Amino acid sequence: MHAIEKILANKAGLDRVEAGQIVTCNIDFAEINDLYLQTVYSFWEMEGQKVFDKDKVAFVFDHYAPAPTINTAQIHKEMREFAKEQGLTHHFDINKGICHQVLPEAGLIYPGMIIVATDSHTTTHGAFGAFGTGIGATDMATVLISGKLWFRVPELINIEINGTPSKNAFAKDVILYILGKVKADGAVYKAIEFSGNYVEELGVSERMTICNMAVEMGAKTAYMKPNEGVINYVNSRTSKDYTIYETDNDYEYSEHLIFNIDGLEPQLAAPHSVDNNISIKDGIGTKIHQAFIGSCTGGRFEDIEAAWKILKGKKIHPNVRFVIIPASDEVQLSIIEKGYMRDLIKAGVTFSTPGCGPCLGTHAGIIADNEVCITSTNRNFPGRMGSSKASIYLASPATVAASALNGYITEPIV
Amino acid sequence: MHAIEKILANKAGLDRVEAGQIVTCNIDFAEINDLYLQTVYSFWEMEGQKVFDKDKVAFVFDHYAPAPTINTAQIHKEMREFAKEQGLTHHFDINKGICHQVLPEAGLIYPGMIIVATDSHTTTHGAFGAFGTGIGATDMATVLISGKLWFRVPELINIEINGTPSKNAFAKDVILYILGKVKADGAVYKAIEFSGNYVEELGVSERMTICNMAVEMGAKTAYMKPNEGVINYVNSRTSKDYTIYETDNDYEYSEHLIFNIDGLEPQLAAPHSVDNNISIKDGIGTKIHQAFIGSCTGGRFEDIEAAWKILKGKKIHPNVRFVIIPASDEVQLSIIEKGYMRDLIKAGVTFSTPGCGPCLGTHAGIIADNEVCITSTNRNFPGRMGSSKASIYLASPATVAASALNGYITEPIV
Repeated sequence: MHAIEKILANKAGLDRVEAGQIVTCNIDFAEINDLYLQTVYSFWEMEGQKVFDKDKVAFVFDHYAPAPTINTAQIHKEMREFAKEQGLTHHFDINKGICHQVLPEAGLIYPGMIIVATDSHTTTHGAFGAFGTGIGATDMATVLISGKLWFRVPELINIEINGTPSKNAFAKDVILYILGKVKADGAVYKAIEFSGNYVEELGVSERMTICNMAVEMGAKTAYMKPNEGVINYVNSRTSKDYTIYETDNDYEYSEHLIFNIDGLEPQLAAPHSVDNNISIKDGIGTKIHQAFIGSCTGGRFEDIEAAWKILKGKKIHPNVRFVIIPASDEVQLSIIEKGYMRDLIKAGVTFSTPGCGPCLGTHAGIIADNEVCITSTNRNFPGRMGSSKASIYLASPATVAASALNGYITEPIV
Repeated sequence: MHAIEKILANKAGLDRVEAGQIVTCNIDFAEINDLYLQTVYSFWEMEGQKVFDKDKVAFVFDHYAPAPTINTAQIHKEMREFAKEQGLTHHFDINKGICHQVLPEAGLIYPGMIIVATDSHTTTHGAFGAFGTGIGATDMATVLISGKLWFRVPELINIEINGTPSKNAFAKDVILYILGKVKADGAVYKAIEFSGNYVEELGVSERMTICNMAVEMGAKTAYMKPNEGVINYVNSRTSKDYTIYETDNDYEYSEHLIFNIDGLEPQLAAPHSVDNNISIKDGIGTKIHQAFIGSCTGGRFEDIEAAWKILKGKKIHPNVRFVIIPASDEVQLSIIEKGYMRDLIKAGVTFSTPGCGPCLGTHAGIIADNEVCITSTNRNFPGRMGSSKASIYLASPATVAASALNGYITEPIV
């Protein structure tokens, strides 16, 4: 069996499972963000009374923090009241950040667990050797009541990544390149295991960036075998016992794709599809109006540090606005401590509250008709960040920062 | 003549003016914020071609920074395009902050000038011995074309403030107390000069807080004779020549109100009127849901420092969210440098982008039905910060912070 299958089998109380099988699993953690008040309504409609385990359910207010409208303020209010009535142990209000960053930081994510959340990018937690997947409000209400959810055991695709990209290309460039090959529908309902010597050496932040984007290929979940960095990260934040499942030597993947990324250059996803991959060389010179670094894909310490290295002591182009939103309060504190936030403000950057920001067009940093935005986020379909007449280029934080400096898409010099 | 009259006479090219007279004055600076795209439309409708002086007109994006909606992104876009076409020397985009803070910081405010802006709180600049007043879009379009505007020379009220408040009461408490006596319609179309030994000793920040709130009594403008602190502040930011006009000894005010504030306790404006003044003693214990420090009244370095002194090393109450929005990037940088931002985030505070924030219900930190907010801002009528069913208490930043700590309105111990 694959490690993912062993997780599902264990949580279903079965000795073994196989691809295609329907299993009902115990859920280790369920997270609901502030787009999903409907979960609470569905819970009541299903005659829910108490959540299955008050230690295993949390709300994270990330899409609308702090509330920009009366409607979103009402959503927060109703969710807070539910959290309080239910006595939830964990609650992440407007001061915390994006769910996929906040939960690992809070020690709630560990290898071998099942984490479900009302957010498609829950595949992020594959970076920790967890089974993470996004679910809708009705499924989530079922989980809140029963603590269980059914899954179809997914086929596994092994994406093996070997080699070393050029020094100005990062994990985001690697996954954009792979997306261009596998395409947005290349892994629908499948699980993707990322392996290879490139992945084995990756830090936690980069592993999260790559697993986050697995859903952009349609994947149900993502998986990376935990390396030492992951184990240290998890152990420093939780005292929980956990199991790292090993994939059997004789396990056969449904597909095995091998990518050699030696010398890979910075990459872009050009408008208007995440798999519309081009090399930076084919995008250089495109005039931009806004640059953005943030989101569960690209708003971590390392991402902002990459921007700082490029912008310290300089000024962004006068025709560009550059919004940076740290993924969490912990990220925000770390960039304050390092002096990065100070230097980036001096360079002309606009910071906003940890959260999703303009990534999905709901908050601080929306773009207008015919504007071009270069961004470290994960989606670029028409209207994703505001006007459906705008254009979005996905890129690494380094490319975003270099472009903000010049006012047009620029290859970062690192 | 009064100093204010001398400003108007000088800008009108007259030797003398008197209250009630209509004069047409040259405008020294005109500022338009991002609520007022209509100004641009009116400019075109009036067949405007070029602004009267590209050095004397600026846009400041403060009410919607960064844009939270497509509509506001479009507003910014159109205003940016106008600023560029017109070749405006000064432009303050989403990374700067609130107009009334940004303009003085940029060295654009000085004694003896006339500053008009599309914002009622333009009275703030009386703190610098300037004639500042808010105007609408049509008047502003006239100014952009002609560089001139008519004024009715206002009667002058002298509000003399003597004494020393208790050490936990600040400028905001003093002006809330005075508002409770003079009332919201007590100075309609009049100019208020604040004088007395309390005012003479005040720092720039506190002077701005008081002059800002003059419009809450209906005042056309506010005035304080520049003290050494003001002169140092202005001289450090501009090399412009300016005149400090002196009020003639024989000048007779239309009213002269004397307040002795010796031992004054912290004050509140209770819902739902800015002049519904009560002593803190009569508000203590009222449960709050949100605390806010920010705005052109109460979002400066000293305001955030007051909160830091109360919250450092502590945690805000779990039932409260506490939003702090620095009034400008300069304020933000100063609280980063001092370590205040770090300590306040650790205490549970949510920071957002410099700008108006939730003060007028347009951005980050909106309140929901039946919620109670305590805030360092300037207005508390129903719906001002979000739901019309919410309640708003105006207070000093110290009172706001002490209340955030306990979850209910609390007298600060300083």
